[in-house]
Amino acid sequence: MRCFVTGGAGFIGSTLTDRLLAEGHEVVAYDNLSTGLIRFLDGARQNARFRFVEGDLLHEPTLAQHMAGADFVFHLAANADVRFGTEHPRRDLEQNTIATFNVLEAMRANGVKRLAFTSTGSVYGETDVFPTPEDAPFPIQTSLYAASKVAGEGMISAYCEGFGFQATIFRFVSILGPRYTHGHVFDFYKKLLADPAHLPVLGNGKQRKSYLHVDDAIEAMLLATGKPESKLQIFNLGTQEYCQVVDSIGWIAGHLGLTPMLAFAGGERGWVGDSPFIFLDTARIRALGWKPRYTIREGVLSTLAWLMENRWVLEQRR
Amino acid sequence: MRCFVTGGAGFIGSTLTDRLLAEGHEVVAYDNLSTGLIRFLDGARQNARFRFVEGDLLHEPTLAQHMAGADFVFHLAANADVRFGTEHPRRDLEQNTIATFNVLEAMRANGVKRLAFTSTGSVYGETDVFPTPEDAPFPIQTSLYAASKVAGEGMISAYCEGFGFQATIFRFVSILGPRYTHGHVFDFYKKLLADPAHLPVLGNGKQRKSYLHVDDAIEAMLLATGKPESKLQIFNLGTQEYCQVVDSIGWIAGHLGLTPMLAFAGGERGWVGDSPFIFLDTARIRALGWKPRYTIREGVLSTLAWLMENRWVLEQRR
Repeated sequence: MRCFVTGGAGFIGSTLTDRLLAEGHEVVAYDNLSTGLIRFLDGARQNARFRFVEGDLLHEPTLAQHMAGADFVFHLAANADVRFGTEHPRRDLEQNTIATFNVLEAMRANGVKRLAFTSTGSVYGETDVFPTPEDAPFPIQTSLYAASKVAGEGMISAYCEGFGFQATIFRFVSILGPRYTHGHVFDFYKKLLADPAHLPVLGNGKQRKSYLHVDDAIEAMLLATGKPESKLQIFNLGTQEYCQVVDSIGWIAGHLGLTPMLAFAGGERGWVGDSPFIFLDTARIRALGWKPRYTIREGVLSTLAWLMENRWVLEQRR
Repeated sequence: MRCFVTGGAGFIGSTLTDRLLAEGHEVVAYDNLSTGLIRFLDGARQNARFRFVEGDLLHEPTLAQHMAGADFVFHLAANADVRFGTEHPRRDLEQNTIATFNVLEAMRANGVKRLAFTSTGSVYGETDVFPTPEDAPFPIQTSLYAASKVAGEGMISAYCEGFGFQATIFRFVSILGPRYTHGHVFDFYKKLLADPAHLPVLGNGKQRKSYLHVDDAIEAMLLATGKPESKLQIFNLGTQEYCQVVDSIGWIAGHLGLTPMLAFAGGERGWVGDSPFIFLDTARIRALGWKPRYTIREGVLSTLAWLMENRWVLEQRR
């Protein structure tokens, strides 16, 4: 299969790329390198079945040109900066909503009809149903990021109905693992390197979150896209557990042999639009035979281990 | 109150404008006249508290400039061409999604924080819950139009959370009444004028739809926006009944004294993405003391009566 991976130099995109190549597929990775790291593709670039295109999803001609010949599009590129959405509201509109529209139009122009899309568990806003199933009550959006993912989901659904596309939408919890370049493990590790005795924590540390290891996420994506059962499939992806922010801090500090003093910013939410509790019902994807191999604790520790071996990545991001 | 009405020259926008002026408010109507008709504002333009701006929501400087000083924004402008969405997918993105973003940003630039937004009952897609409440299961979008309205709702919700906005979202059934310029009554009347003996009908005529008279819709909008009870309110607006397309044809033909032969295109849907059944649960808005004064039959007949008295409008549209 000829796969086109947007965000192919990113954390999840590059891991997916390596896996698709290992399975014998051809891959074109498309990335503007705004947050993706070309170094993640060092292995892929040794492969004759791989091609990297440095391009922006907002530049439609480049996108359409390089998608030519693809059988399947994995649309992973996004502005994933959930926390700072209100500082630059246009970014979610452009990089998520409009970029997704451009991907759909490039597919239509090239006659490509099969798509996988990475959405987010944040689309459930502050639901009161836990674990949250895919058909939870019509949610209220609390972040610009989630609103832009809902916009993307809606357009994709309408293209399935109107243009005969087949799509699979994955609503992720936070993903962890090798090549992880932003999020709480990254932030805490970086802060503890700078000051092992004190750790500032957003919110009250009691926010309950769910996490999934990137390898488990990719396993689920390949399983669900491999034998689609309808023109539009939607799957939550996550573990059947959650942890508190302070749990994760305990695992990280313990692994590092540190006992930092925690300074909580206070409040139930880490930032405006943060969901204080995310816990997805994954019965639908598990019914296909999938289950995660990593617990949240194992995911956090494997992420930390990778960051410790790849400290160069700490310098790549704020 | 100084009101800024986008789509102010449209069917609903001009009727709302007249009503706001009658209640003593100041109104700036902003419209690009792509589908709005300046003639609908003939009365308003006699009023010193009224100002018309011919402008496009995609032209941000003009929008921000003319919104200055507003207390409240009624954002009604939209591409409402639901049926032909797949012929020009970019139109819903630009005129609904991006236009709504621009309205929100112009509000932020001007320090305006109160908003009403006209969404649609189509956001429930092909739900299986009837009548459909506001918190129906997370729907699958079937039209680009509804997808763009969901995108607008999501951004508005996120602005309420992130920027302290207060918004009221109305999910309309189809609206009928004076100044109605597109939809089934318009189409059927125009076709019967051309050929009183034959009437082509989209679908099988058994589609079940709900309709609301524009005066009832505006009454509900003023009631709900007058005393907002939370930072984000969402209300379905509709009657507690539905009719079949063939019922409405019977009322129209009967009023005209005609007995046309009906030629059904066939199929459950009038077009790709058409919802074969729309019937909203309006308990939430009725709990505020609102109820519609017009039945669906009365709404259809008052629309027909207005079209018969204003045949000039038949020439304004396809």
